[in-house]
Amino acid sequence: MRDFVYYTPTKVYFGRGRENEIGNICKNYGYSRVFIVYGGQSAIRSGLLDRVKEKLAEADIIVDMAGGVQPNPRISRTREIIRLANIFNPDLILAIGGASVIDTAKTVAHGVAMPGIDVWDYHAKKAVIKKSTPVGVILTIAAAGSEMSDSAVQTNDTIDPAVKCGTNSDFNRPKFAVLDPELTFSLPQSQIGAGAADIFMHTAERYFTTAELTGNHMSDEIAEGLMRNIIRYGTIGYNDPTDYEAMSEIMWSSTISHNDITGLGTAAEKGRGGDWSCHQLGHTLSSVYDATHGASLSAVWGTWARYCMDANIERFAQYGRSVFGFSGEDDAVAREAVEETEDWFRSIGQPTNISELLGIDVTVKICEMLADNCTRGRTRTIGQLKVLGYEDVLEIYKRAR
Amino acid sequence: MRDFVYYTPTKVYFGRGRENEIGNICKNYGYSRVFIVYGGQSAIRSGLLDRVKEKLAEADIIVDMAGGVQPNPRISRTREIIRLANIFNPDLILAIGGASVIDTAKTVAHGVAMPGIDVWDYHAKKAVIKKSTPVGVILTIAAAGSEMSDSAVQTNDTIDPAVKCGTNSDFNRPKFAVLDPELTFSLPQSQIGAGAADIFMHTAERYFTTAELTGNHMSDEIAEGLMRNIIRYGTIGYNDPTDYEAMSEIMWSSTISHNDITGLGTAAEKGRGGDWSCHQLGHTLSSVYDATHGASLSAVWGTWARYCMDANIERFAQYGRSVFGFSGEDDAVAREAVEETEDWFRSIGQPTNISELLGIDVTVKICEMLADNCTRGRTRTIGQLKVLGYEDVLEIYKRAR
Repeated sequence: MRDFVYYTPTKVYFGRGRENEIGNICKNYGYSRVFIVYGGQSAIRSGLLDRVKEKLAEADIIVDMAGGVQPNPRISRTREIIRLANIFNPDLILAIGGASVIDTAKTVAHGVAMPGIDVWDYHAKKAVIKKSTPVGVILTIAAAGSEMSDSAVQTNDTIDPAVKCGTNSDFNRPKFAVLDPELTFSLPQSQIGAGAADIFMHTAERYFTTAELTGNHMSDEIAEGLMRNIIRYGTIGYNDPTDYEAMSEIMWSSTISHNDITGLGTAAEKGRGGDWSCHQLGHTLSSVYDATHGASLSAVWGTWARYCMDANIERFAQYGRSVFGFSGEDDAVAREAVEETEDWFRSIGQPTNISELLGIDVTVKICEMLADNCTRGRTRTIGQLKVLGYEDVLEIYKRAR
Repeated sequence: MRDFVYYTPTKVYFGRGRENEIGNICKNYGYSRVFIVYGGQSAIRSGLLDRVKEKLAEADIIVDMAGGVQPNPRISRTREIIRLANIFNPDLILAIGGASVIDTAKTVAHGVAMPGIDVWDYHAKKAVIKKSTPVGVILTIAAAGSEMSDSAVQTNDTIDPAVKCGTNSDFNRPKFAVLDPELTFSLPQSQIGAGAADIFMHTAERYFTTAELTGNHMSDEIAEGLMRNIIRYGTIGYNDPTDYEAMSEIMWSSTISHNDITGLGTAAEKGRGGDWSCHQLGHTLSSVYDATHGASLSAVWGTWARYCMDANIERFAQYGRSVFGFSGEDDAVAREAVEETEDWFRSIGQPTNISELLGIDVTVKICEMLADNCTRGRTRTIGQLKVLGYEDVLEIYKRAR
């Protein structure tokens, strides 16, 4: 087993109507000034925002708030929210939403704790997060697992072309997360499908790596169990978003898919950090074309897998046997498993190529632009199973068209 | 999926030689006065205690310590250690050992934080833990999972007959745990076997419950994966305690078997608390006869399972199919799975009946005394799959002779 550091301090409150406990939860922690971050109109229309404000008021908690967080959240709006939050001087930032809102709340929390540092510097690796404000979460979309993860993603829309990237820190781990599957019943089917793809990918990115970096068998058991579970319940929930059992399984799978239990430890801690190529390939598609995150991952994964699988064919075969029950030679099982996964992506309405994702005819010129963005002008490589440079990235984008 | 609260804030440092980082770990948390709790001579003989003291001294940390913690730790010694610790006034209690030492360190931590309360009152449910001192762990035996759990067990040796019982609280969760599998290489084979049985049982106690209380499929995936893993690597480690891979898998399985991820939530939080009958049956055997904890569980589990399985035969069948790959009718698979589990216990040197455990001829009179102790003089029931009163407990002890 490889060395690792494991740390998931977020307290999870899971179940129907749990958000109605938010006043008591905040009060028990001793919070008295809560700044809510939310997205668009759905939190207002559904009555959730009002309900939460009411519960906080009942607990004598003073509330201010800012909305307008978009998918692929823009650093320009995040900076505005930091200015508003700093005027209010909160002791808790409360995210009501999905990953974009949570990631923004985390970034706002850093901005409130260290007002002298521009928060994009954390994403651009020009500064290290050394202090933050506590973050709480009321989750409304099961997908990114940000409610228990150490990562926060932002898109810098003030530079051209826009760049989307994440930052990892224990200061990104929320203090608590309220998970009520019923809050996801009203989601559009496409978002449930994209969420399931994202959940699958958070485990897959950690699982499909080199033979040297694998070998934590207990983690493999959890990872394979999680992939089986999300494939099964992702499909059920996609077809009936009011199935409480399915939506619960999707929600909890989402949370633990990205809290590190399926992978263990960050690269910095010499643990099994994961490959993360597809996230990098997808982040470029999202920053340039505003593509939905989960869909951007399903669009490239199959092509990436076929391009890289020879580096550890045994791993893809183990996946095929454990998750789909296939049998036979490694190579055949591995290829069959990748195809089966792409079939599953399609069955939950997700694209398996870039043209389908973007709805445009993707030319070689576009692929070159994407590869340039993804490798930051040929200045970085991505990946772990195979380390991918500009030419590799270009080839994957071309094959994934 | 059932409602739950999940909270595992302990930071885990896993890998070879991790204990050598103890000075920096404590320093990073800001601790400056560390009180070490340890057991017998093995921590001294192995040089571990001296090594840890040296590393703490290098980090300018002041150290005091107390040893003499025995298996099935006695409250009388714990009270003495609390007196010593209170004179020293520590900001961290550091356990170097296995469950008995860790559980004692947790209890000492409560005693230091609230010197006016006798710590047995927490176990006797006469007081609630409201404050504690941070606890760190350097683990030397993989078994009880106390390094990440919310429970602490003590035996009250000042009353006759002695009573062993646990207390659960988030204040029992250590701040950090250092897990170096190499520290377990020198353990006697019998302790490795008993540890593996204990690890299996922490998941089994949560898994084998009523149909109404099951139904968290992601948890089942993890639980079944964990039981497969400990059966596989428990056997390998038992036969070769210097096999790093096996001893690592045993150690990590141990930690997550009791941190709640295989079960989710306590009974108080309306989650799936688990059955825990075998732990209660075993605690009596340990408190009266000082039986090894893991061995006390394997001695009763098969009998308990056969006595209770009709209440949820599907669950035992699911176990047989998932963990052993059996197929067939529920009833046959369930019974075969229980026998296979007992075979595994025996293969790692663990008893599957009480006479073998205690090395005495267990009479009906002894069983009556045990049942009386376990039900606290017929004043309580145990269990969840079947709620067991005095007559049930007596019958199980008699059948398990």
